[in-house]
Amino acid sequence: MNEITSSNGRLYGVGLGPGDPELVTIKAAKIIAAVPVVAYFAKQGARGKARAILDRWLPGTCLQLPLLYPLTTETHFCDPAYVRELRGFYADAEAAIATHLLAGRDVALVCEGDPLFYGSFMHLYVRLKDRFRVEIVPGVTGMSGCWSAAKAPMAWGDDVLSVLPGTLGHAALVRHLGAADAVVIIKIGANLAKIRAAIVEAGRLSSAIYVEHGTSEAENIVLLAAKTDDHAPYFSSILIPGQGRRP
Amino acid sequence: MNEITSSNGRLYGVGLGPGDPELVTIKAAKIIAAVPVVAYFAKQGARGKARAILDRWLPGTCLQLPLLYPLTTETHFCDPAYVRELRGFYADAEAAIATHLLAGRDVALVCEGDPLFYGSFMHLYVRLKDRFRVEIVPGVTGMSGCWSAAKAPMAWGDDVLSVLPGTLGHAALVRHLGAADAVVIIKIGANLAKIRAAIVEAGRLSSAIYVEHGTSEAENIVLLAAKTDDHAPYFSSILIPGQGRRP
Repeated sequence: MNEITSSNGRLYGVGLGPGDPELVTIKAAKIIAAVPVVAYFAKQGARGKARAILDRWLPGTCLQLPLLYPLTTETHFCDPAYVRELRGFYADAEAAIATHLLAGRDVALVCEGDPLFYGSFMHLYVRLKDRFRVEIVPGVTGMSGCWSAAKAPMAWGDDVLSVLPGTLGHAALVRHLGAADAVVIIKIGANLAKIRAAIVEAGRLSSAIYVEHGTSEAENIVLLAAKTDDHAPYFSSILIPGQGRRP
Repeated sequence: MNEITSSNGRLYGVGLGPGDPELVTIKAAKIIAAVPVVAYFAKQGARGKARAILDRWLPGTCLQLPLLYPLTTETHFCDPAYVRELRGFYADAEAAIATHLLAGRDVALVCEGDPLFYGSFMHLYVRLKDRFRVEIVPGVTGMSGCWSAAKAPMAWGDDVLSVLPGTLGHAALVRHLGAADAVVIIKIGANLAKIRAAIVEAGRLSSAIYVEHGTSEAENIVLLAAKTDDHAPYFSSILIPGQGRRP
């Protein structure tokens, strides 16, 4: 840690919140306005969710460094070719950011939500943290944005809240749905039919809320039981609020 | 819902984030600057954590409405006298806020962290939501503030993350510690010895991080194994990061 050269730039991992540009923190907006380089993740051919939030706060003068994912998020992680390709992507992104840091330029790597909560930022953080000074700026998570938009008080008193990736298998979903008082299921996409079956089996369908594009203009919130199809974007979520003690 | 009178004021439930005043969202700061009444929870004789964050953003002209808890947070919830007293407190707070709303004044009820995540705001929300228009502004949670301060990537890929109140019994803590990949334990205080024993029994001591006053000036972050005493404030937390897939 002591060998980190102070003439190098500093890396900021900046959370941008759930989607509404006004839900960016004051600290994040100040850093974005001050740094010479802003890096963000996006899919090939798309602007990216982070970039959409960023538009409001990005000064015209800063250098933008898009980091373009090689594949969609729904390719199966067990495919070795996919893992190899992702590894190459992170190595390229690491090199692109390190070039600026070594030249003494601060870099803000922004991401939607919170940087250390299921964020791609973490993959670059572990690759860069031993060579450069890093500061992390937490953000409002996507799940906070969703339960606020749904006006669903999520966890009370002694409630246990579990966050479950929808990529888990049916049996694991049922087990965790039965063990927790409050549940947030993320990464829905093509997993919705499996997730719905697990929620029904765990006896929790009646309180499950489906949220699509929470806090953005395309926001759509319905009871899961009232959603008749199994089409869902990957970044939608399902909320099952806790019912803990309340005087 | 259609009967809510539009001449009444609007209630805003506003999350202020984990402690650093710069981690307030732009939306929250704008609402606080605009409303005529700002209400906040505090203990008798103390300024309150929310009020401390608020100081930076509160205009001198607005009316401040402190809502003073009757007792400390560590009295046992099973005590019927405590439940009765809390119920009276929430009824009084509801009446105080409703008076302003009925007079057409908007009220921002602010709280540290996120309003719908173990927040006292929820107890007033459920009492006021059918009579008044309510808007919820999510905030950065205390746990996001803590893991960012600790620079601990918390949840990766298919990790399950569980939030456990330290008020749970030993057996429940051990069970949940064994079932989740990433764990955040909140509400530590006098529960620390019990929590530590459960973490040891679940075989997770080596990766447990103790965080006190995350993102504030009094911040203190140590490995739990290196913390030799069992003194802890109620609002400290313990983080056990996930170790999920990473290319």
